[in-house]
Amino acid sequence: MLGEGRSETLAGHGPKVVTQQIARTIEDAISAAGVQASDIAGVGCGMPGRMDVNGVILWSPNFPDIEGFPLVSEVSGRIGLPVWMENDVNVAALGEFQFGAGKSVQSLVMLTLGTGIGGGIILNGQLWTGFNSGGAEIGHSVVNPGGRKCGCGNHGCLEAMAQRDAIIERAALKMQSGQKSTLAEEVDYQIDKITPALVAKHAASGDQLSLDTLAETGHWVGIGIANMINILNPEMVIVGGGISQAGDALWKPMLRGAYAYAIYESRVVCQIVPAELGDNAGIMGGVALVLKAMGR
Amino acid sequence: MLGEGRSETLAGHGPKVVTQQIARTIEDAISAAGVQASDIAGVGCGMPGRMDVNGVILWSPNFPDIEGFPLVSEVSGRIGLPVWMENDVNVAALGEFQFGAGKSVQSLVMLTLGTGIGGGIILNGQLWTGFNSGGAEIGHSVVNPGGRKCGCGNHGCLEAMAQRDAIIERAALKMQSGQKSTLAEEVDYQIDKITPALVAKHAASGDQLSLDTLAETGHWVGIGIANMINILNPEMVIVGGGISQAGDALWKPMLRGAYAYAIYESRVVCQIVPAELGDNAGIMGGVALVLKAMGR
Repeated sequence: MLGEGRSETLAGHGPKVVTQQIARTIEDAISAAGVQASDIAGVGCGMPGRMDVNGVILWSPNFPDIEGFPLVSEVSGRIGLPVWMENDVNVAALGEFQFGAGKSVQSLVMLTLGTGIGGGIILNGQLWTGFNSGGAEIGHSVVNPGGRKCGCGNHGCLEAMAQRDAIIERAALKMQSGQKSTLAEEVDYQIDKITPALVAKHAASGDQLSLDTLAETGHWVGIGIANMINILNPEMVIVGGGISQAGDALWKPMLRGAYAYAIYESRVVCQIVPAELGDNAGIMGGVALVLKAMGR
Repeated sequence: MLGEGRSETLAGHGPKVVTQQIARTIEDAISAAGVQASDIAGVGCGMPGRMDVNGVILWSPNFPDIEGFPLVSEVSGRIGLPVWMENDVNVAALGEFQFGAGKSVQSLVMLTLGTGIGGGIILNGQLWTGFNSGGAEIGHSVVNPGGRKCGCGNHGCLEAMAQRDAIIERAALKMQSGQKSTLAEEVDYQIDKITPALVAKHAASGDQLSLDTLAETGHWVGIGIANMINILNPEMVIVGGGISQAGDALWKPMLRGAYAYAIYESRVVCQIVPAELGDNAGIMGGVALVLKAMGR
């Protein structure tokens, strides 16, 4: 990694400003790396939502203004370099596959646990992005119909059961029931101060409320993992995203859930491992996108 | 289709007898077709369970004696022809893909509804069979944790919620609650006389108990279909197997369930269609296996 840039997307200001912010970030990274634009073979990007093969954004719930906008060609035109773009979690999966936890396998499923739950699927060494770039929305597979309402409008999606807000709600409910807890003391019984990181911290020091919160969350993620093992029989499932760093309090019940619901013959060959590249998975996946486009 | 043969597997008599029965069926089909064995390029087979790339059976819950047995080489040795074998639902998916409902697409998911619920996945025109031949066990993805017990030991698998016995149980429960019904009259309130075909027949003539039974079943299959659309974004989902022939009483709630839970952008491009080849899907998939092995 030679250099980095970082900017706000300023999505509320519309696609032209987003284009400018992306271009600026790329230019910042190039100058931080101390190289010239002419040294750069290409730019690989990750973007939430789905885009067509020409890089026109089809659907981006967090940036609705950008739908229909030819983001790839606009960014490329502005920086004068070829640009390849993919869904952000797909790019992260590609990064882990080529440079991280998945280096040694040819098939994997990646899940990212955070504000949402994203998915990426690699089969036969290739990203499967679906017929119209909507593949691997594993977070929106239903694991508990009638369960918690999801941002997508349905109930009981894996994302609804295990994302950031689900964890906070779970902890809040237990807190409101009067359960004693060091987490509750730290946030002074104020629900809006609960964060998954705080829950993880108190779980690690033995707080039962926090342990239970992460155990329930891990159980749902485990069912989601088992479903992917049963449906795709991959060599590896990689779990990343901020919430995946919650430690054994999350991982043990998650693995128990996965083992309980996955077919024995498929799960004994499937490694379930943490992501290795952290926030850099997407960046390294961008590198992989460019290498692939160049046939390397 | 030039000729057919049909024999019992006699699985209870062990793998040698099964081998003999398979060989006999192949010889019967050859002679019914009025051709010579020397005219045959190869034999394609479908088999429940999973087998390794050399045709050794790894897992076959209905024929446990056959696990570890080199079925492909034994059959091949006996008939003197090359043999290719795959999981039976995978072969059926391949048949529908190459010769049936899926002829015009490059990605599809097939579900077969019957005693069990089987799955087959075709991506980029290729069967995805998983890392160790366990792929596409879609029937054992969990859609309702805590739901009905499955043959696999878990609770709430798609199979447990929508297979043959689940339909019978659903109708029986309603019957026991005293609901008036032409189905109940036909079976004389005897639960062991209920069959999915009878339920479908009475649903078609407006029997509310039968309609409700199939509506609940269809709803679960619809959730299973939605999950596959969200996870894989295929061009097509094909629904086959005996129970798929239960008509609108099953299909309408199934499509409603699929549409309710699938991501809009992915489901509008995904055709959800009945299988076209019926019992011949596996046979035509066998043909496809041989053609593929021959590079055609």
